[in-house]
Amino acid sequence: MRAEIVAVGTELLLGQIVNTNAQFLSRALAELGIDVYYQTVVGDNKDRIKQAIEIARDRADLIVFTGGLGPTLDDLTRDALAEYLGRGIVLHQPTMDKIEEMFSSRGVAFVESNRRQALLVDGASPLRNDTGLAVGNALAVEGTHYLLLPGPPREMKPMFTNDGSAWLRERLGASFALHSVMLKFAGIGESALEDLLIDLIREQADPTIAPYAKEGEVAVRVSTKASDPEDAARKLEGTLTEIRRRTADYLYAEDDVGIEAAVLRLLTGLRGTLSLAESCTGGMIAGMLTTVPGSADAFVGGVVSYSNGVKRKQLGVPEGLLEGEGAPGAISAETAAAMAEGVLAAMDTVYAVSVTGVAGPGSSEGKPVGLVYIGVAERGADTRVEKLQLSGDREGIRLRASKRALYLLWQVLTGRK
Amino acid sequence: MRAEIVAVGTELLLGQIVNTNAQFLSRALAELGIDVYYQTVVGDNKDRIKQAIEIARDRADLIVFTGGLGPTLDDLTRDALAEYLGRGIVLHQPTMDKIEEMFSSRGVAFVESNRRQALLVDGASPLRNDTGLAVGNALAVEGTHYLLLPGPPREMKPMFTNDGSAWLRERLGASFALHSVMLKFAGIGESALEDLLIDLIREQADPTIAPYAKEGEVAVRVSTKASDPEDAARKLEGTLTEIRRRTADYLYAEDDVGIEAAVLRLLTGLRGTLSLAESCTGGMIAGMLTTVPGSADAFVGGVVSYSNGVKRKQLGVPEGLLEGEGAPGAISAETAAAMAEGVLAAMDTVYAVSVTGVAGPGSSEGKPVGLVYIGVAERGADTRVEKLQLSGDREGIRLRASKRALYLLWQVLTGRK
Repeated sequence: MRAEIVAVGTELLLGQIVNTNAQFLSRALAELGIDVYYQTVVGDNKDRIKQAIEIARDRADLIVFTGGLGPTLDDLTRDALAEYLGRGIVLHQPTMDKIEEMFSSRGVAFVESNRRQALLVDGASPLRNDTGLAVGNALAVEGTHYLLLPGPPREMKPMFTNDGSAWLRERLGASFALHSVMLKFAGIGESALEDLLIDLIREQADPTIAPYAKEGEVAVRVSTKASDPEDAARKLEGTLTEIRRRTADYLYAEDDVGIEAAVLRLLTGLRGTLSLAESCTGGMIAGMLTTVPGSADAFVGGVVSYSNGVKRKQLGVPEGLLEGEGAPGAISAETAAAMAEGVLAAMDTVYAVSVTGVAGPGSSEGKPVGLVYIGVAERGADTRVEKLQLSGDREGIRLRASKRALYLLWQVLTGRK
Repeated sequence: MRAEIVAVGTELLLGQIVNTNAQFLSRALAELGIDVYYQTVVGDNKDRIKQAIEIARDRADLIVFTGGLGPTLDDLTRDALAEYLGRGIVLHQPTMDKIEEMFSSRGVAFVESNRRQALLVDGASPLRNDTGLAVGNALAVEGTHYLLLPGPPREMKPMFTNDGSAWLRERLGASFALHSVMLKFAGIGESALEDLLIDLIREQADPTIAPYAKEGEVAVRVSTKASDPEDAARKLEGTLTEIRRRTADYLYAEDDVGIEAAVLRLLTGLRGTLSLAESCTGGMIAGMLTTVPGSADAFVGGVVSYSNGVKRKQLGVPEGLLEGEGAPGAISAETAAAMAEGVLAAMDTVYAVSVTGVAGPGSSEGKPVGLVYIGVAERGADTRVEKLQLSGDREGIRLRASKRALYLLWQVLTGRK
């Protein structure tokens, strides 16, 4: 099956929003084994939407629309498709009931335009909207499949994941399903990881091996088509074992979680507690950890020490390390160690991580932008410090320092260092 | 002039990357007064690229391509356009010299495929690439304008901003330029702001008024076409004055900065210092503030208090507030005030902000998800506390609480409250 994704919305053409829906759907369709040949964006204009349908119908047998199902007169996708197909529009009573109930439960007078959100192209199956009002549409006409999904990602994604993909699976037949395992790596760059796996990547057939990289983390997706999970596991096992063997120092998870979640999982398993002392990362590591629900089970707290006064008073870094003739300074291995040990003692945790460095844009203490020291302290063990020279802009340096700090903690927690 | 953006790259169709180039170019073209009617994504396949050109030529008089100018055999945009137009390919010697010099300066043997990056469609003007190797192409054939830009945003953006837009301006004639002012708002939602300005938005002609919303902040862009900056200022002034009058409680900047940067600017001007005590936001506010270069001038540090122990010991919150019969608990107005006053005293700052609440997914202390207290302490003044009931998921609540906390501080610093 060949697909085209058609996003409808003038706000996309004005550059007010990014078309993240196209990425989500492209990935989701690839997982169903459906090839996406084109993505199109068209404005809120009925004639142009109809022209886009005409073109897409020539080159695809599945057209997935996003946007244009809402209540306003600018929401034209359903009308355009109905006109194009020469079909009528019908009311989907369950959606209408839900909309009226929503209005009455909020004690708000019903606004007539909302009726539009309960309309279907005649003959279409409704797709449930659990996070909004507009009903989705699915229909097949003369060999072409049409899916109409809402524009807001928080409505579109669950609708596709639930009803949309089920509808497509039925049409694709039950024989097929793609099974994949996501391997997540830290402490290694994309090209270095590819070097470790280059022969496997070059010679891949089934399973397929697809590297991804984003925001300081690297992932590899290993996939195969199989009739059931057991069959898939059998087909994946050889490749997975070989990748695990080669990448043991960096492979931190076999599901799609960040290094922060992996570290929290390990800490919870060990009944270990963690505190942080952040200077140049300025709270970024704490922010990452506390993104994870339940992080309070292991993460006790942290100090953001953006001044020497806070380093001295809240972290107990000796004055002699920070200032004066011959002092190593705030950006030094000695201060990184003292910060980690200081917060470990102050917050009485089993582990503590510290970061101090120069995020830029200017240098600091005469030290170069990108110089970063990371400390990892453990109750009853020696404190380790790593010195890094990172490149990139301020945010890049802060992000890479944060990820590296979590990787060093992961090494300690897994006994790799 | 009507434009179509054609992004070339199979990685887009697989959903491996998001098409942020289309957003950047749509905005940039809008600023030149060029309407974008379609965005298309096509894979690395010469026949399909040629078909996309055929379609785009019918409906646009400017086609802006991104991607497919690199050294590999998958980079086909230039070849496809040359074949479509029946033109040859020529070598751009200055680019070739630059590529050879790059290889020799790195002491690496020249790789023949890199020659491809120095090729132009016959008759095209070269567009300089300051951040990469591939030369851009600009040409006009039979009333259709073609711009060929590289795919990586860090190469594409400067090439467009420098040479690409200059080439387009020449073709559009010199009379025209769009001037705009970005107004940034906090403490108010998109629809409430639109309500305040609804008559202005409805009746807009020149200047135009375009609201934007993203990540808990709201902006309005006011634009006009004018021959020079003085003329633009004259045309914008009436609208700006009226918007300022209506929105004074929320308008924190007239340039495109975040509320964190605006607050730091105010603090620096007042020679005020700031500390933070973050519970449910977990370092997010500190992370936002320290994104801004030079934030250390005003931001001294913070405590992330993810446990009652840290609230007691590092922030001095009285035991009696946190636990025991009848205690208000960690999530209370009393604790928010004590946290802000505690960090103000501990870090000896002029201002301090605290946040405590339930980010979810589960409730805490029997209190509902989304309940948040924000404290703002000021040396020698009464501490203010605001109670919020936020909706959304964990990250949404944390983000909105962080932005609201910065807004409350902004109110205090500007004497609005």
